[in-house]
Amino acid sequence: MIEIPILGGHGGNVRKASEKYGIPENEILDFSANINPLGPPEGVYRCLRSNLHQITRYPDPENAELRRALSAHLGVEEDRVLAGNGATEIIFLTIYALKPRRVMVTAPAFSEYARAAWSGGAQVVSYPLREEEGFNLKPFEIIKDLTGVDILFLCNPHNPVSNLIPPEALMTVIEHCRYTGTLVVVDESFLDFVEERRDYTVVPYAARHDHVLVLYSLTKLYALPGLRLGCAVAHRELVARLEACRDPWSVNRLAQLAGVAALQDPAFSDRTRRWLRKEKEFLFRKLQEVPGIRPLHPEVNFILVDLSESGKGASEVTEKMARRGVLVRNCSSFEGLGDRYIRIAVKDRLANERLLQVLSDVL
Amino acid sequence: MIEIPILGGHGGNVRKASEKYGIPENEILDFSANINPLGPPEGVYRCLRSNLHQITRYPDPENAELRRALSAHLGVEEDRVLAGNGATEIIFLTIYALKPRRVMVTAPAFSEYARAAWSGGAQVVSYPLREEEGFNLKPFEIIKDLTGVDILFLCNPHNPVSNLIPPEALMTVIEHCRYTGTLVVVDESFLDFVEERRDYTVVPYAARHDHVLVLYSLTKLYALPGLRLGCAVAHRELVARLEACRDPWSVNRLAQLAGVAALQDPAFSDRTRRWLRKEKEFLFRKLQEVPGIRPLHPEVNFILVDLSESGKGASEVTEKMARRGVLVRNCSSFEGLGDRYIRIAVKDRLANERLLQVLSDVL
Repeated sequence: MIEIPILGGHGGNVRKASEKYGIPENEILDFSANINPLGPPEGVYRCLRSNLHQITRYPDPENAELRRALSAHLGVEEDRVLAGNGATEIIFLTIYALKPRRVMVTAPAFSEYARAAWSGGAQVVSYPLREEEGFNLKPFEIIKDLTGVDILFLCNPHNPVSNLIPPEALMTVIEHCRYTGTLVVVDESFLDFVEERRDYTVVPYAARHDHVLVLYSLTKLYALPGLRLGCAVAHRELVARLEACRDPWSVNRLAQLAGVAALQDPAFSDRTRRWLRKEKEFLFRKLQEVPGIRPLHPEVNFILVDLSESGKGASEVTEKMARRGVLVRNCSSFEGLGDRYIRIAVKDRLANERLLQVLSDVL
Repeated sequence: MIEIPILGGHGGNVRKASEKYGIPENEILDFSANINPLGPPEGVYRCLRSNLHQITRYPDPENAELRRALSAHLGVEEDRVLAGNGATEIIFLTIYALKPRRVMVTAPAFSEYARAAWSGGAQVVSYPLREEEGFNLKPFEIIKDLTGVDILFLCNPHNPVSNLIPPEALMTVIEHCRYTGTLVVVDESFLDFVEERRDYTVVPYAARHDHVLVLYSLTKLYALPGLRLGCAVAHRELVARLEACRDPWSVNRLAQLAGVAALQDPAFSDRTRRWLRKEKEFLFRKLQEVPGIRPLHPEVNFILVDLSESGKGASEVTEKMARRGVLVRNCSSFEGLGDRYIRIAVKDRLANERLLQVLSDVL
């Protein structure tokens, strides 16, 4: 048997929880996946219902309409946009196409960066985000280790911490990477949830420079994880290089159509951000009131919670909550977090209140 | 700019044809993609309509239900089945996971084998299927060149030729590959259309030996190319190795559900084969009557047609037919076929008659 890197599961596996705990899937409240509870926009369902017959046609291998819509939405030329079967496809594609020898990830970070790098045969090194520094990236520290690193993965906002990299810190790293020849992959999958996102995004930079690639996801804010849809923004030569190495039909036809429909409803994302502003503060405050736990202030639609003071481990708490039909993300599989953190998605008020009740009960 | 291998387009790009020729998409008859005109089974639409809300959930990363259904359908254990975002995802995954130095394809063959190998950095060598031998594989010829070949791609039935490799010829190659350490990828994407498919499939062999991988597609017979769905059957250690290297959510949720629904209707594939037996012979006979062209007898739902005697090239004929709203596959992008062949899918009688009319008109 081959060696597989130790990786925990991801959130969002409702089927498995249902089987394991003997609870019907529709009675499970899933806080383990960070999906917008307001979505998808109604136009997406309308579009899918009237276009189901298009499953009998191949997807457009050029993703033409979808890339046109993404290009307008993101404010970059179409040849800077690569569509993907979720942002995760693009993570793997980037590794496979560029064949890096050495890849740096932060610890903790979304685990597919490291898994993709490992499966591509790269050496994976990690830069620790320190708990005592609020898991904030220290730009002048990380750049010291970048020599010889072919690809650096950063996550902004960070998953699972829910914090942001300040623009000047990010640009310090990016500017340094020009000199080390490092491609910086900035995963902005959750940035659409941030009201001041225009101050944080490096999409305009990525479109003009050949050493930055931005990952963008439509599955979180538009609530389409089951359909899969993401994209990359990068210099057109890098886009062409990745296009040359990809499965031409990776983005299914319904995702192509749903993506265009979702982006036609700008009011939806505004509504989501207005709702989230209040609801994440509500959930954060309420979590602060629960004895023995320490929620970290969230910038987006999920909250990292430190259980240390409760004397209970993340695995135990996750398990006990799951038995009562409430799934949270056990963060013990994230490098550097130990068995002490859980991640909780912000859902609607009724669900959030149920979560608070069950969490208090099991602590 | 990087060098991209010279590869023609694929069939099935109705959008592009519509734009190029100014014909509405719904007025185009597409014979360039080999999709079952009877499908998908009605149960697939019913299933999708009642499960659209599942787009808000992540796909099951283990593809558990789908693999259970595929395992029962193919008669192999579940741990021998790897589900994919179409068979094409698995072609790329196999290359990326196994990192072959040398890959052999036949010429002609489905072009994604070579493109995947190229993008993985492998040297691609081709074994010519000779026109004068009816494009039949000569097992004792091909095995002479297999030393040093890490992966050999075979297509059975062959796309675009529409012929079958006799079981003894295929087993001669496969048995030889044990000694050369060559993994044989046998693409059986169209085998479900063959009535005697059990005599030809190497699925049972692949499940027990570690040097054969079978590609199986649900997009052709079940007419789901827009949803994307395929699988591989291989030894469980090879399956585990590929699983370790893949995007966990590559198969979207609707494809997972549709695949299970499609396989619940065994009468559908029987009906398709009964219909095809007659209709492909009808279209073949009628094509034989068209002066100046030579159709090759088809084993499955598409027919390769030699235009040599007509004095017209494949590009010219394809273009002229497309202008009249009838798409056929120009085979000049297949290595070894020159500008002399077109490939025609078998569709329903009315469509086939229209094709015959337009083809006769442009010759």
